[in-house]
Amino acid sequence: MSEHFSDRLRRTAEPIWKAQHAHPFVRGVGQGNLDRERFEYWVRQDYCFLVEYCRLFALAAARSPDLPTLTRFAELLRATAVTEMSLHRELAAGLGISEAELEGEPMAPTTQAYTDFLVRTAATGDFAELCAALLPCMWGFSEIGLQLALGPRPADTRLAAWVDAYADPDFAALADWCRGLVDRLGANAPPATLQAMEAAFMTSSRYELAFWGMAWRMERWPA
Amino acid sequence: MSEHFSDRLRRTAEPIWKAQHAHPFVRGVGQGNLDRERFEYWVRQDYCFLVEYCRLFALAAARSPDLPTLTRFAELLRATAVTEMSLHRELAAGLGISEAELEGEPMAPTTQAYTDFLVRTAATGDFAELCAALLPCMWGFSEIGLQLALGPRPADTRLAAWVDAYADPDFAALADWCRGLVDRLGANAPPATLQAMEAAFMTSSRYELAFWGMAWRMERWPA
Amino acid sequence: MSEHFSDRLRRTAEPIWKAQHAHPFVRGVGQGNLDRERFEYWVRQDYCFLVEYCRLFALAAARSPDLPTLTRFAELLRATAVTEMSLHRELAAGLGISEAELEGEPMAPTTQAYTDFLVRTAATGDFAELCAALLPCMWGFSEIGLQLALGPRPADTRLAAWVDAYADPDFAALADWCRGLVDRLGANAPPATLQAMEAAFMTSSRYELAFWGMAWRMERWPA
Amino acid sequence: MSEHFSDRLRRTAEPIWKAQHAHPFVRGVGQGNLDRERFEYWVRQDYCFLVEYCRLFALAAARSPDLPTLTRFAELLRATAVTEMSLHRELAAGLGISEAELEGEPMAPTTQAYTDFLVRTAATGDFAELCAALLPCMWGFSEIGLQLALGPRPADTRLAAWVDAYADPDFAALADWCRGLVDRLGANAPPATLQAMEAAFMTSSRYELAFWGMAWRMERWPA
Repeated sequence: MSEHFSDRLRRTAEPIWKAQHAHPFVRGVGQGNLDRERFEYWVRQDYCFLVEYCRLFALAAARSPDLPTLTRFAELLRATAVTEMSLHRELAAGLGISEAELEGEPMAPTTQAYTDFLVRTAATGDFAELCAALLPCMWGFSEIGLQLALGPRPADTRLAAWVDAYADPDFAALADWCRGLVDRLGANAPPATLQAMEAAFMTSSRYELAFWGMAWRMERWPA
Repeated sequence: MSEHFSDRLRRTAEPIWKAQHAHPFVRGVGQGNLDRERFEYWVRQDYCFLVEYCRLFALAAARSPDLPTLTRFAELLRATAVTEMSLHRELAAGLGISEAELEGEPMAPTTQAYTDFLVRTAATGDFAELCAALLPCMWGFSEIGLQLALGPRPADTRLAAWVDAYADPDFAALADWCRGLVDRLGANAPPATLQAMEAAFMTSSRYELAFWGMAWRMERWPA
Repeated sequence: MSEHFSDRLRRTAEPIWKAQHAHPFVRGVGQGNLDRERFEYWVRQDYCFLVEYCRLFALAAARSPDLPTLTRFAELLRATAVTEMSLHRELAAGLGISEAELEGEPMAPTTQAYTDFLVRTAATGDFAELCAALLPCMWGFSEIGLQLALGPRPADTRLAAWVDAYADPDFAALADWCRGLVDRLGANAPPATLQAMEAAFMTSSRYELAFWGMAWRMERWPA
Repeated sequence: MSEHFSDRLRRTAEPIWKAQHAHPFVRGVGQGNLDRERFEYWVRQDYCFLVEYCRLFALAAARSPDLPTLTRFAELLRATAVTEMSLHRELAAGLGISEAELEGEPMAPTTQAYTDFLVRTAATGDFAELCAALLPCMWGFSEIGLQLALGPRPADTRLAAWVDAYADPDFAALADWCRGLVDRLGANAPPATLQAMEAAFMTSSRYELAFWGMAWRMERWPA
């Protein structure tokens, strides 16, 4: 049987994804020794990210070619806006960050660049590009969560909860559904579409890696 | 206290809304004597409409200026895609229409014209226009449901269920929330924005009335 | 050599296109006996149409996959907004319609339905659907112009000028370029894309025919 | 008379715009001693930028509230896609960069971040935000061109031509037209709109400054 399109994408992005797994931020989560300041920074910026990721799911729902796909994205949107963001708010509360502070957090340069890329692609690209652009975030977090869950459980309860959330089989199932969607859209697609999908997948992969780097060095806008 | 913007819109559209209340289709629902064929036609076309109305909520979520508005539209989208459309599928099943038949129903001219107007406005207009365009459907159905609920309960259980659904206080609360949003967007808006909002509200109102007419004469595309 | 995709589209739409050629409005132009009132109505509504058709070219430019395509649509947009609309303004002036009157003309139901379909498809569909949706207008007018030019020249100078404009080889070249674009986008495209493209082409073809009908009966919104 | 909205925007952005005028890249152009490598880098990246800036004008045309605004953006789009990009191709040719090389140039991180921000805002924001986002590029280049033209003419003919292009009164007129449009959209706009417009203007201003910095250090993606 021939390789799925998502396998090919994953292989092309291998050096970037490998660098994600090896990133000191990710390893710090797994080893339970990531410092609180960097983790707090990540929580704030990921909250900003999720607001925009919701817009991505919303545009995906709006542009879905059929009702089952539309419904799935509608559920993903609501789950993100309601469930996942609530978890972030709780996590933030545990770190002493008020909801108002969280809402008022300005996006750092990498968060803005990544989310502008995602929303722009979702609004003006073809539906297949939109799906290829949103895949690396879901798939990557699931892969990282599952990988870290193989190691010893982090002593830090917050970091342990982080691993649990992204190692969750339900989350893996969501990522699998997205992969399947990309595979279906890539099957029999003409070369120009495949190229555009690969470009979107690679750009998002690069931004996923850059997001860890941003959190690690607690990036700020130049004064 | 000055009048809310939505009161002004409602007043401008009064002749059209009055014609809705007086429409033989609407009166037939209330009196419980609407023939089954016309009702069945309406169920099929309203199902087509709802798929596109979901896209409208999705675009509203994608373009919401803040997280609470985004979240509310995300919930509306899911409630429509999952709950309301399931009710339509049940209603259709009760009328002997299979799910496959329902999904395969082609849009009649008025359904297509109305939904293309809505999605086009949602995709390329300002957010305030999007909200003004989506209001007449929610508000109108709530008003009609509440009005019909004042009369005797239709003997036909299907029509009685129809009245119950749209007379529901939760549905009225949704319509109120949409009105409040339009009021906030219209408050202190410059004349050009108010004009664009009024034009969108009037166009949707006209299409709401035309939708009853379409169902009454069971409109089809010319051969 | 295998058939081009646009040949297949044209063949599927044959009954609709044939009905266009046979339409009393089109025949009236060719025979030079179309009454002035209907022609005037058409000029007004086609002006409304062109404003929206410009938006279609603009969205096509914005979403073009490469610079040559973007540039071509940029030129088409400017040619339509500046040159073709000036010709309509002159034509209108010759009919005693002031520019202010022309700008203030409200869209009739068919013009609104067609242009909302076009802009909605251009804003939320894939680029291939956008191109398939815009083709029937350009190709159809070119085909009708060339067909009418084979007959005797209409005595009415306005109708003769109309035939000249759409029989122009430059206009045919534009239509050919659009066909070529659709052929390239359809080549090797997966079934779902081809279906979406065909659906868009058929819907626009139906609206092209309906546009002649609208002008013939001088359609107005119901009171 | 009260201050125009664009004056207020300009004042808020003053530290950023001042930093642009003082930037070694800009001063190097004015003093005629900018090294060829950095200038070549800028030509390549600005060419990438212009392709996306065309998409911005196209979306502006598609979403213009009236025909004169639509037509103006159509002309700007064509002038950029045809005239300005030809000048860049000539400039590149003079530097020994082939057209194929120019077309194949990958966007550096800052070019990608800025253009994704612009296209995203143009596609999903309100029309007023779109206009506020596109203003800093046109106005800023005009201001810098006029400022440099006050000094001695750079000996380097390429840099002299650069100054001439952006000090051109026609270019200043375009920037003025954009300012006037932003002023009209900001007049009587509600606070939320003014805030969104200011945020867009500030973000673009920051990216304009970052663009000089990118060219100065010849930014590349991390390996």
